[in-house]
Amino acid sequence: MTTIADLPTPCVLVDLDRVERNVAVMAERARAAGVKLRPHAKTHKVPEIARLQRAAGAAGLAVAKTSEAEVFADAGFDDLFVAFPVVGADKGRRLLALADRVRLAVGVDSVEGAQMLAAPFHAAARTLDVMLKVDVGLHRVGVEPAAAADFARRIAGLAGLRLRGVFTHAGHSYSGETPGAVAEVGRSEGEILAGVGAAIAAAGLGPLEVSVGSTPTAPHAMQVAGVTECRPGNYVYHDASQVSLGTCGLDDCGLTVIATVVSVPAPGRAVLDAGSKTLSNDPLRPRTGGFGWVLGGESRLGRLSEEHGVIDVAPGESFRVGQRVRVLPNHACVVSNLHDFVTTVRGDRVEGQLRVAARGCVT
Amino acid sequence: MTTIADLPTPCVLVDLDRVERNVAVMAERARAAGVKLRPHAKTHKVPEIARLQRAAGAAGLAVAKTSEAEVFADAGFDDLFVAFPVVGADKGRRLLALADRVRLAVGVDSVEGAQMLAAPFHAAARTLDVMLKVDVGLHRVGVEPAAAADFARRIAGLAGLRLRGVFTHAGHSYSGETPGAVAEVGRSEGEILAGVGAAIAAAGLGPLEVSVGSTPTAPHAMQVAGVTECRPGNYVYHDASQVSLGTCGLDDCGLTVIATVVSVPAPGRAVLDAGSKTLSNDPLRPRTGGFGWVLGGESRLGRLSEEHGVIDVAPGESFRVGQRVRVLPNHACVVSNLHDFVTTVRGDRVEGQLRVAARGCVT
Repeated sequence: MTTIADLPTPCVLVDLDRVERNVAVMAERARAAGVKLRPHAKTHKVPEIARLQRAAGAAGLAVAKTSEAEVFADAGFDDLFVAFPVVGADKGRRLLALADRVRLAVGVDSVEGAQMLAAPFHAAARTLDVMLKVDVGLHRVGVEPAAAADFARRIAGLAGLRLRGVFTHAGHSYSGETPGAVAEVGRSEGEILAGVGAAIAAAGLGPLEVSVGSTPTAPHAMQVAGVTECRPGNYVYHDASQVSLGTCGLDDCGLTVIATVVSVPAPGRAVLDAGSKTLSNDPLRPRTGGFGWVLGGESRLGRLSEEHGVIDVAPGESFRVGQRVRVLPNHACVVSNLHDFVTTVRGDRVEGQLRVAARGCVT
Repeated sequence: MTTIADLPTPCVLVDLDRVERNVAVMAERARAAGVKLRPHAKTHKVPEIARLQRAAGAAGLAVAKTSEAEVFADAGFDDLFVAFPVVGADKGRRLLALADRVRLAVGVDSVEGAQMLAAPFHAAARTLDVMLKVDVGLHRVGVEPAAAADFARRIAGLAGLRLRGVFTHAGHSYSGETPGAVAEVGRSEGEILAGVGAAIAAAGLGPLEVSVGSTPTAPHAMQVAGVTECRPGNYVYHDASQVSLGTCGLDDCGLTVIATVVSVPAPGRAVLDAGSKTLSNDPLRPRTGGFGWVLGGESRLGRLSEEHGVIDVAPGESFRVGQRVRVLPNHACVVSNLHDFVTTVRGDRVEGQLRVAARGCVT
């Protein structure tokens, strides 16, 4: 039997028992709330894990890029939503090919972008489903709620497009300093988007899909009347940020990194063979605080360079050269994107490897 | 003829004219200073670019991990230094195999680590060259200069190892707020390490390789008497941090990212299809300030999420949906690690693609 003690470091571990439990919990939440669950595949980027989500009742997948949709279509997923305002003539051609083989929707948040998407579909006498992105407070992309009905009318009037619904991502929930603040963002997300959906439907453009996102807000937003779909991603693995936000407990975290102490050069400092190439430089949310937690104690990774993870050793703890430790990253999704494979485990037993098939899909 | 206007975005461009000039300039500097040049391959991770460096006179390559050494050995490079305190029984076995086919050296900074490296070589009646890492001020790994001679004696006494030299990396030069401060770190780096080398040699353990590192400090540290080797990496591409440090000009930057504006959701905000999956979340050095520069103007990327790059639009500038822009990243090395291929260009003309063969090599 191979155990995690046999693995070369650094190595990304995926605990299948925890992943299966996380998948089941969110599926049951969506069922109880009466909404469709469309997990965002960006967190794992692994078709085998998406199959667990589908087997638990997921209605389809959300992805971020056209190239990710192509990977999951190749893997047999037939209902894909590219939750991003896709722009580019090359992308239009690729989406046209994708629409031949899957039920497809794509995000839009501008009339110009919608026109560019519409052109190749109209020319081919085809229709692309689009979802209008609404900004409920993150202030990244998306139209203002008050402007959404007018946008919807203009988009729905474009030959080659059909307005399937509205969607949002309440990423500002990651700044929620208390569980109550996170829940409030989730309720607000659901209420704003359901209101937008109702206004557009009242203009004769319904019925609409009303799709909310984000792992922290999912349990709250999906309860709001009028919400029809939920797209959490991170819940499949969770991470140190989710623990900090109160979204989950430490024992729910399904992705960790095993690393080796390679240097103990000074009191209070120990250095791992896992740096930002392994863990990423993404900050902890909601309050910044290091770049990963060394499990089993209080020590944290205080800084990373590409190959070095520098532990700020907590009082009363110590590390020795050659010691192996397990690190909980700040942000699981970006760790997936840094590795060709993840190693699956149940407890300390190694089960196998899964290829991160959609890693590096940026176009 | 294919031009950059034809490329799907986001796309990493490598300007071969600039890379060739950067390679020639650093090679000439090393020649004039009378030191060996051993470029750190982590910046490009591309054998074809390492061949340009070799053709210009590089004595060998530095790499960060055992797996990177394996990639470059496979590509025909026969003089490799793993500039990292490698620890792990599996690594010892792999280094033993590598030492069969290349001239190899490995970093050490602890007696325990050195003992673990020595064991498989001693058991095989072989000898591994090691380089003792000295901390000249970065405070990451490495022994204190005052303790180095004693460490060197203990390491040189281990059967299976031969002490080839001492090395350092003055990464704290990236905090240098002025060119004068950077130069001072470089001179200090050279002087401290040359002093350590002389002390060890005086104890009868010489002659030693005295190897300094880092692109900002290279021109200064390589001038110091007693320094024999220099290991800059970033100079092959440069980036926004090098420009900020005064190490190079904008026109020396050989790696850029072409991206498309996908959303202009509010005045002062435009969003690209390139986020941290394309550009990384690495901060600008020496002063933090955004996550990449939009070339041709004053606008900067103010924040990134995985797929979104949010431009803080500078006064008097504007962006429209569908517009293509070119971004200079904060840190070129980490961008290389995020992509399977880079696209080579001369001016606007696309030359081809190079596989980033050592991408993702973390073990």
